[in-house]
Parts: sequence; C-alpha cells; structure tokens
Amino acid sequence: MTIKLYCFGESGNAYKAALPLELSGLDWEPVKVDFFGGETRSPEYLQNVNEMGEAPVMVDGDVRLTQSGVIQMYVTEKTGRFGGETPEEAREVMRWCFWDNHKLSSQAGMTRFLMNFLPEAKRPEGVIPFAQGRLRAAYKTLDAHLEGREWMVGGGPTNADFSCCGYLFYPEPFGFVRSDWPQIDRWLSNIEGLDGWKHPYDLMPGSPADRA
Amino acid sequence: MTIKLYCFGESGNAYKAALPLELSGLDWEPVKVDFFGGETRSPEYLQNVNEMGEAPVMVDGDVRLTQSGVIQMYVTEKTGRFGGETPEEAREVMRWCFWDNHKLSSQAGMTRFLMNFLPEAKRPEGVIPFAQGRLRAAYKTLDAHLEGREWMVGGGPTNADFSCCGYLFYPEPFGFVRSDWPQIDRWLSNIEGLDGWKHPYDLMPGSPADRA
Repeated sequence: MTIKLYCFGESGNAYKAALPLELSGLDWEPVKVDFFGGETRSPEYLQNVNEMGEAPVMVDGDVRLTQSGVIQMYVTEKTGRFGGETPEEAREVMRWCFWDNHKLSSQAGMTRFLMNFLPEAKRPEGVIPFAQGRLRAAYKTLDAHLEGREWMVGGGPTNADFSCCGYLFYPEPFGFVRSDWPQIDRWLSNIEGLDGWKHPYDLMPGSPADRA
Repeated sequence: MTIKLYCFGESGNAYKAALPLELSGLDWEPVKVDFFGGETRSPEYLQNVNEMGEAPVMVDGDVRLTQSGVIQMYVTEKTGRFGGETPEEAREVMRWCFWDNHKLSSQAGMTRFLMNFLPEAKRPEGVIPFAQGRLRAAYKTLDAHLEGREWMVGGGPTNADFSCCGYLFYPEPFGFVRSDWPQIDRWLSNIEGLDGWKHPYDLMPGSPADRA
C-alpha cells in the first residue's frame, strides 16, 4: 500500500519527513495540505487529522503519525536506514533531531513565515531580529559540529541530516545566508548530491509561485 | 556506578531528564551547572561537555548524552519504563516529546528566562507577548488532549508527561496560569501525586533563592 504524506512545499517540517521517505525507496505519495487556506487550523483537521494542528501527517494503512521526527523513526523502523549504525550513533542521531526541533527548524520556520508569508502590517515588532539572533547561535553550533565531517553522524546520511537541513534549501530570505557558513554550505552540497535528492518545491506540492 | 546529571534547578529541560531518572529508581545524582555564571557558554564546556552549550548532560560510565528527550529514551532503554507499552504507544510518546520540544518547553523556557532572569533593560521589545500567544496555542492543544485522560499516553506516566510538564511547576510568572487550564491542572496533580515526585527546586541544585 502506498504511504501517504500530508504535506505542502513551503513546510520544512514536512520536508524533514518527505526526504527520507523519498531516499529510502519506500512507495509513498504526497497529498497537499492547504495550509495557507487554513486547513490545518480547521475544526475538521484538528478533530480527524491532527490534534496538534500541524503538517506533516503520515498514513500507512492503519498507522497514522505526526511530527517529522517520529515519521523519520518509522522510516528507519521499516527500512533499517538513516537511524545510525550502532546504539551510540542512534542516540547521536536522536540528539540532533531533538536539538533541531528545539533550536533550529522551529525558529527558522517561524522566522521565514513571519518574513515571507505574513502581510507586512501583521508582522510583530521586534520578534524577527530576536529570532534571527537565536538562529545565528544555532548555525554556529551546526557549523562547528560539521567541521571535519561529511555528515552529522557517522559515515553517511541519517535523520540528523534530514532534520537539520529542513529549512536550509529554501530561497526565501529569513536570515540564513549559506555562504556565511562554510561547513554548513559544504554539508548541504553533500545532501544535494545524494542519489534521488530533490528540493522541497520539487518533492512536495505547493510553492509560493502558486499563490503569486 | 552512579549516573551523573549535570543540571540546575531553574532548568525545565533538565527537570525533564531528572524526573524520570528519579522515578525510575536508577542510582543517580545531580551535579550543579553554573548556568547563570556562564558555564554552559564557556569554551571549556563547549569543547569538553556539550557542543550545544546546553544542560542537561547525563554521564553513565562511558555514555555521555545530552538533550532531555534522548536521556529519557536512555532511562527507558535501561529500565523498560516510561516509553509506552506497545509500539503504537511508543510512537505516541515520541510524538508528544517532539511536539513539546518544538512548541511548548522551548517557548516556555525562553519566555520565563526573559521575564524572570534577564535584567528588565535587556528584555527585547515585543518578544514576550508574541511568545505568550504561541504558548497559549500550545496550552490549548495540551488541555484538549488531556480531556478525559489521566496521562498523555496510555494508562500511566510516560516520557510524554515528563516532557510536557517540564516548565509547568515553576512559580515564576511567564504567562502560564494553571487554573486557566482545567485539564492541564488535573494532569499536573496526577504527576505531583506520583510516588517519589519532587518539585524541580527540590530535585535539582540551584534556585532563584540562591541568587537573591
């Protein structure tokens, strides 16, 4: 049975789930969620799809999962891939997945939304520079970790890479300038070089061009 | 060998790790990290203790782990407790742990820090009301989930409870008023009623009183 991922192109959190689904070779297809039309905040979505009011949501037969980190773990469970080769690597992968959710993707997604998808008149004063300051601290941690490494953990791509890169391929400005961070830049090129890699706007339906 | 947890009383993220260590019956002890003296941001700490510049850090012989979610998984691995009783429950526990890191504890910790531990002159304009708005959405999701439930997942306490409650027992104001959220209030009482439960300031060294 084909796995369905409810997602949309603008969501880096959905990309974090879509990318390992695609690279694992599992049979999956994206189903577009109309985030910008309010679908994830509708009573019907909260009641029947995801009480957290978020995408992505993965459906594989009777299994319905949300949170990109949990969908990544499920892909690992089904395929044995991307979860680390040893118990030590597995813990290190999870460590970066949690860190990403706490410090990187959560802040990057919010900042990119405020700067690109919210009408200028609605942008909350002072929040963007503050969030960008926190993000610089996160880029610094990531860049330092990647010094001398090809991948976040071990000798190949894992969920740690797919999690931390979630928002870093998008063209919309939110304060991340790839050339400012040489180790991150090199590592993103490694990910782009993976057989079957796709940009978020090519992997999932929906992009700002649809709404232009 | 006694497990060491590098932590400090004011950290809800450290509490998320300390509470399952304590309730699991494992032999552990807290080691105070001088966060307010800058220890977690020192070059020595970044190099030798945690490149993420954060507490908690757990050391069990050769195993050194950071990120409360990963330390929780390690306690589950060692004791079989708090991880959910079935694969479905295990995924549901992880789902709430990720959600908490993304939407709840990350925002609550930051907001409480800005409102209570940063000099008023340094508080960034506009950030606190914005973060409190996001937090209200998170409390709403949590309160709705707890309707008709004693615990976040299944029939007893799990890491999902220990993660989501991380900042909710603290007395310092940050916009969370327990009586505003009846389901959360009832659930926090369930946690307080667990045999061996301790408040963060009783479980870990350091509290605002030390710096008064």
